[in-house]
Amino acid sequence: MSKIIASIKEAIRQSGLSDGMTISFHHHLRNGDMVAVMVLDAIAELGIKDVNVNISSVFDTHGPMIEHIQNGVITGIETDYMGGVVGRAVSEGILNKPVTFRTHGGRPSDIISGKSPIDVAFIAAPAADCMGNCTGKVGKSACGSLGYAFADAMYAKTSIVITDNLVDYPLMDYSIAENYIDYVVCVDKIGEPSGIVSGTTKITKDPVGLVIADYAARAIEASGLLKDGFSFQTGAGGASLAAAKYLKDIMMKQGVKGSYGLGGITSYMVDMLNSGCFEALYDVQCFDLDAVRSIRENPKHMEVTAAHYASPTAKSSAVDSLDVVILGATEIDTQFNVNVHTDSNGYIMGGSGGHSDTAAGAKMAMIVAPLSRARLPIVVDQVLCKSTPGDTIDVLVTQCGIAVNPRRGELAERFRQAGLPVRDICELKDMAQRLNGTPKKPQLSDRVVANVLYRDGTLLDTIHGVPAK
Amino acid sequence: MSKIIASIKEAIRQSGLSDGMTISFHHHLRNGDMVAVMVLDAIAELGIKDVNVNISSVFDTHGPMIEHIQNGVITGIETDYMGGVVGRAVSEGILNKPVTFRTHGGRPSDIISGKSPIDVAFIAAPAADCMGNCTGKVGKSACGSLGYAFADAMYAKTSIVITDNLVDYPLMDYSIAENYIDYVVCVDKIGEPSGIVSGTTKITKDPVGLVIADYAARAIEASGLLKDGFSFQTGAGGASLAAAKYLKDIMMKQGVKGSYGLGGITSYMVDMLNSGCFEALYDVQCFDLDAVRSIRENPKHMEVTAAHYASPTAKSSAVDSLDVVILGATEIDTQFNVNVHTDSNGYIMGGSGGHSDTAAGAKMAMIVAPLSRARLPIVVDQVLCKSTPGDTIDVLVTQCGIAVNPRRGELAERFRQAGLPVRDICELKDMAQRLNGTPKKPQLSDRVVANVLYRDGTLLDTIHGVPAK
Repeated sequence: MSKIIASIKEAIRQSGLSDGMTISFHHHLRNGDMVAVMVLDAIAELGIKDVNVNISSVFDTHGPMIEHIQNGVITGIETDYMGGVVGRAVSEGILNKPVTFRTHGGRPSDIISGKSPIDVAFIAAPAADCMGNCTGKVGKSACGSLGYAFADAMYAKTSIVITDNLVDYPLMDYSIAENYIDYVVCVDKIGEPSGIVSGTTKITKDPVGLVIADYAARAIEASGLLKDGFSFQTGAGGASLAAAKYLKDIMMKQGVKGSYGLGGITSYMVDMLNSGCFEALYDVQCFDLDAVRSIRENPKHMEVTAAHYASPTAKSSAVDSLDVVILGATEIDTQFNVNVHTDSNGYIMGGSGGHSDTAAGAKMAMIVAPLSRARLPIVVDQVLCKSTPGDTIDVLVTQCGIAVNPRRGELAERFRQAGLPVRDICELKDMAQRLNGTPKKPQLSDRVVANVLYRDGTLLDTIHGVPAK
Repeated sequence: MSKIIASIKEAIRQSGLSDGMTISFHHHLRNGDMVAVMVLDAIAELGIKDVNVNISSVFDTHGPMIEHIQNGVITGIETDYMGGVVGRAVSEGILNKPVTFRTHGGRPSDIISGKSPIDVAFIAAPAADCMGNCTGKVGKSACGSLGYAFADAMYAKTSIVITDNLVDYPLMDYSIAENYIDYVVCVDKIGEPSGIVSGTTKITKDPVGLVIADYAARAIEASGLLKDGFSFQTGAGGASLAAAKYLKDIMMKQGVKGSYGLGGITSYMVDMLNSGCFEALYDVQCFDLDAVRSIRENPKHMEVTAAHYASPTAKSSAVDSLDVVILGATEIDTQFNVNVHTDSNGYIMGGSGGHSDTAAGAKMAMIVAPLSRARLPIVVDQVLCKSTPGDTIDVLVTQCGIAVNPRRGELAERFRQAGLPVRDICELKDMAQRLNGTPKKPQLSDRVVANVLYRDGTLLDTIHGVPAK
């Protein structure tokens, strides 16, 4: 008995996929993913049209999606993040239907509740057996955690595993179990290893970034949260990682024994685990090879599903117990609303991912960002796109000072007592404008090209198109 | 943030449990389980009546259920197995509603599909954290796998973890994740260690049992299935375990590298894993302390959910890939139908468990049984209760010969060539009757006290009451 099908095309045929249906992908192979395009090419060759694509993140390697949109193969996209290549095309109006943006917690929530049903899920798996037990921990395309793929596999009508590493049944230490899988397809290669490990997971060397990181670590130290049992998530941006490094030094010096590190996991978090800063890592996605090795070898480094990580309709999720999260921003406004979806010209080039999930869950949600980037102020009167509501953001750390949400007066007081440069957020905005001038608001069209759903499914904002030049 | 509730009673109140609802329990603490009775006592004290109890197995330690039936607290029971204490009371008509018997695969299938909804699931957990992440692998009441509890926790409206070992958040190497759990209650003791390890997991010393075991192992050797990749499950009865031991000797001698051992796991299966007979164990329930230690320490010894183990509506389950299963029987008839529900007097004292699931899945399903027990023939014209359909049973091994289902003529031929004593099943029946006489059929009442559902949900048989003496 075996579920192996000779080709992706044949598996699609067997799945009964037809015009108007929804397919899904996960993004653990990141910018090295070859599966989504492979499948979309096969769908196009089969003459199937009007497909809705629910993909946990769109990377620049998914550029060929543009052609499939132009050909009418893809007519809808639901995602938690969209890189600049496809983002620019969407902003310029390539899709008739607005993209639906969710969060990494909202996506499994809506899949599990049935709000966003999936007809056929495609699971890119670095190792699988003939019955569909699969894992990301081993194989030439190893990516570590498959956290985002669980809801897809468990709730899609048909689930197809695509692997380049078929192993004997039964697969040891499987992540997703055979009871959810219909078919298995073996291909030559599911991913480009260099792209699976993102280039963003390097610590910053920029002096401004290091000042920000130092302030961030000292703010955490001063917050009152840094004590035994401390839990922590950080993004993979350069300043966030530098902050994690400084934080580690403080924790080691003070002998603080944290409980868990969470999120997309980098080598810096692995290092903190191995140094005794944490008892455990809960990993929904690995950002680099050290993380992949660690989740494979260290039982304290555990895979979590996206629902366990961040679903707002789960009975609880790991973000609910989080003490501190460090997050990035492309803009933050004086109400502390954060934009991580669009650039200063209004083009889509990102998405919430776990941004608003962790901000909602953590006791202290901290944005780290330089006062300006490429002469554009980060602090603005009003963000172009509200990705994360300001009432869930507690602190903004820049190289010129730390702004604290007025809702968190006690935090500002703690920071002041620790000698940190606390500033009103409007003051930071003014400083940025003095240095860089007041930027012109981009001219956007009336057309809505994307709807941004908050983690609970409510409409948080809309993204308007950018007129083609 | 914490889900800890001070008492079971308070957790029941918070769950909204009321008259007419369904609650559930799992049976990994086996005859040492204290949780089911603790909860039922609390329900009774709260004045809640007419409760339907879905419990994966009823052991003799659950004797106090009888009182709760008499008091009107329990009015329905759904289970996969029922020991003699409660079984006798049910056979004597204590419940107005017939008991529903399912299989270990049919139970999660019906829970997941919504056919048998659960209002409140009670998860007895040897270790848990304050958010409900829990495991059976560690703690003073460690029982190993929690395989049967997953469907309950995942699909009940409310899920309550009851533990006697609250650990720091987050629990390492959790089995059931917090996203499924509503409340956590910490009590002094959830189980009696001596009862958690069943007395049945000892190898037989009875010479008749050893002859049967020797035939069984040689029949497996002769079957053509014993080659690299071989997969195997055995029950925990004495002759089954002896057969496993003999089989191990054959595998070691011939250098056969099996793939996986499955099922309820005993020290004998652990020994086979450690000796290289298998690459992996898939464990839905641990029968002894060696198995508990192994699942905790050996990554090749993996927990599987009941759905992954045996659900007939899963996209596949581990029983589907099984080569050989060795099973017991209280009766087998000349059509190879097997009874594991009732004794020769018609009293309920067992149940299918995984019997008919593995029989349906395995390439060779083998019954091992003595020709007679206490002067009662095992082979009969017609079983009192059809627990497992004869068309899924391939071989009966007794000390007086091996009967092969006529559907499997090629197996009979292989056995003959190996010099094994193949007999017609009617011949075995006649031998048993010559030795013991023809037993009188018990007089049963017209009243149906239990419905036996096959793994696919269809009605396989009914069990009639025994008139009170």
